[in-house]
Amino acid sequence: MLGLLVAERDGEPHVLLQAKAEPGNIDGIQLSPTVQATRSNYTRVHRGGATRYLEHFTGPGRGRVLVDSLQSEQGAWFWRKHNRNMVVEPVGEVAEHPDYRWVALRTVRRLLRVDHLVNMDTRSVLGCLPPESTSVAEASVAEASVAEASVADASVADASVADAFVADAPAPRSLTSWLIDAKQSCPWRTRLVPLADVRGWTRTATEIAADSGRSFRIIAVRVAAGTREVRQWAQPLLAPGGPGLAAFLCRSTGPVPRVLVRARTEPGLGDLVEIGPTVQWTTDTGPATPEEAGPFDAMALTGDTARVRFDAELSEEGGRFHRAATRYRVVEADDALDDLLDDARLPADYRWLTVPQLRALVVRGQHVNVQARSLLACLAAPPPP
Amino acid sequence: MLGLLVAERDGEPHVLLQAKAEPGNIDGIQLSPTVQATRSNYTRVHRGGATRYLEHFTGPGRGRVLVDSLQSEQGAWFWRKHNRNMVVEPVGEVAEHPDYRWVALRTVRRLLRVDHLVNMDTRSVLGCLPPESTSVAEASVAEASVAEASVADASVADASVADAFVADAPAPRSLTSWLIDAKQSCPWRTRLVPLADVRGWTRTATEIAADSGRSFRIIAVRVAAGTREVRQWAQPLLAPGGPGLAAFLCRSTGPVPRVLVRARTEPGLGDLVEIGPTVQWTTDTGPATPEEAGPFDAMALTGDTARVRFDAELSEEGGRFHRAATRYRVVEADDALDDLLDDARLPADYRWLTVPQLRALVVRGQHVNVQARSLLACLAAPPPP
Repeated sequence: MLGLLVAERDGEPHVLLQAKAEPGNIDGIQLSPTVQATRSNYTRVHRGGATRYLEHFTGPGRGRVLVDSLQSEQGAWFWRKHNRNMVVEPVGEVAEHPDYRWVALRTVRRLLRVDHLVNMDTRSVLGCLPPESTSVAEASVAEASVAEASVADASVADASVADAFVADAPAPRSLTSWLIDAKQSCPWRTRLVPLADVRGWTRTATEIAADSGRSFRIIAVRVAAGTREVRQWAQPLLAPGGPGLAAFLCRSTGPVPRVLVRARTEPGLGDLVEIGPTVQWTTDTGPATPEEAGPFDAMALTGDTARVRFDAELSEEGGRFHRAATRYRVVEADDALDDLLDDARLPADYRWLTVPQLRALVVRGQHVNVQARSLLACLAAPPPP
Repeated sequence: MLGLLVAERDGEPHVLLQAKAEPGNIDGIQLSPTVQATRSNYTRVHRGGATRYLEHFTGPGRGRVLVDSLQSEQGAWFWRKHNRNMVVEPVGEVAEHPDYRWVALRTVRRLLRVDHLVNMDTRSVLGCLPPESTSVAEASVAEASVAEASVADASVADASVADAFVADAPAPRSLTSWLIDAKQSCPWRTRLVPLADVRGWTRTATEIAADSGRSFRIIAVRVAAGTREVRQWAQPLLAPGGPGLAAFLCRSTGPVPRVLVRARTEPGLGDLVEIGPTVQWTTDTGPATPEEAGPFDAMALTGDTARVRFDAELSEEGGRFHRAATRYRVVEADDALDDLLDDARLPADYRWLTVPQLRALVVRGQHVNVQARSLLACLAAPPPP
């Protein structure tokens, strides 16, 4: 579970963050949500200490739940992993502890621009909050209901267009049908196989690695720590070949700002397909597979700084991955490419969404992948000074 | 895919049904949706004929989509099966064919009371439509948006209650948190194993059966048919031990009518847990497992006909199951048992929902199991004459 406590302090929403070291982290300590615990952590299978602040998220002491959803994580690396993402307003005052601080939401969003500081779990939860929230009330379920309505509104809008053309044109697909079409047209079938049967991979005394050397490796680390639930342990980590790339093309001009999303197929996702960024590369040197390539790759990598709204290299989960980094970019689409970006001309796996539409899908759970949720958090970062 | 065409004819919505035989059907022919096809059917892997009317649901000829969702089927019998459920208003007139007839929606709903007539696939799709729909417009996405709003409204209502008590009481759980809590507290883990490793089951020349004789059997049938896509084939079927039971307790009195649902755990469901009926037994002679038993079993089986709003024995999918039947009941809750039915006293896995709330969850897909969707269809059956 990834749990974030949020409360009004000094007239603006603050969140309770933990400064936390993970064995795979770049730069050691990063900003983590209030609670970041696997089921075995918080049910104390490993006989570690109790998880601090957990009582605000589960059981009779639970506060007011603002966000609660099951979200996928890296479908290229995990087999059907999902994590509960919760934002809770606690009942009464909650005191800080040495590794925990109440930080203004505005400040956290500014810190997203610092490389390797706000960790993946925090970004995933922030991606579930409305970007404009400047009070706890705005960050609350009332916003969620607006967001829920947005998906429906989009369908209604589609429907009224259809009404106008029903005699001579097919109805445009609703957002829901677009995503189900993508799932249904995916030809992949996945099943678990014994590790010994996987061709092209070799297990040595120290790692499991692809013979080609071009993919990730599974390594192991021994960890000694003073503040973790268990003080010493050894564990496997997945070490990627290099940093990845995740980018949103966006349109801030026009009546409604929009982002360009792509239906993304990943073998470890429950339904195989979720909504991903415009561009998502496993390594930032280029598409790792033909499926990763797309017509907007060059635009996402533009050097034209006037069009780059966000650009930072951030870490993926340091408890599972060894020095895994992704370059996150939000890039204003080039008006010169209007033709390519026109709805009718977009390839079938792309679609323009408003931010409220995208958030409404996030709230449903298991519809928007972790890279796109990170980018949603980054979209809310204030402009650099 | 299960696809139902709906169109306004003679001032009321009609649906295009197929009179269809399936090898496992009780009474041979049942009323099936317009399109009922597996992917291998409609992509013609088996080199059968083209699927009739499919063009209204996929590709450029698709009509106006009123319902589009991925739904689970029997999680006790299928491994992670899901089926796309679509309701589409076609563009232009659609002609009948010998096995197909336009039938008034009102009539189909009346026919639900006839044993083994409206098949499971039709019920599943009907369960996605608003029960009160008396015009195509009411059955359309506009209704879906109302339904979407309902889930959110429920959260907002919860939140305002929380606001009133936030100083001294924990917030009531939202509907979403209730379902995620149920998923998270499920201790089951599932994985596929070789058939030869399954203990307590024996494979003979003619069947795979439990040694105890108390569960289903896998049998095989040879089929010769004149109207199916392929004229002759052999296939396995799952033969249950006897008819099952699925029942909703409901409350028609009070400000808002409600039904009592139970979070139901089934090994073949993707998330293991979905929303099910108040009572669901694999065989109608009693709970097959301790988990199937519950405090409302006797109430669901009441012989007090004044309280029974619906009671019929209907078939499950005859293309996969051999003579699988379920007794579907909708029973008015007994006021004498108010204490037991009070929200605060309900066991954690039960919850009262309004019909719009339940439908909103159906529309999301993979939230409401197939028995509960059948019961939703039955709830819309007009009272017997």
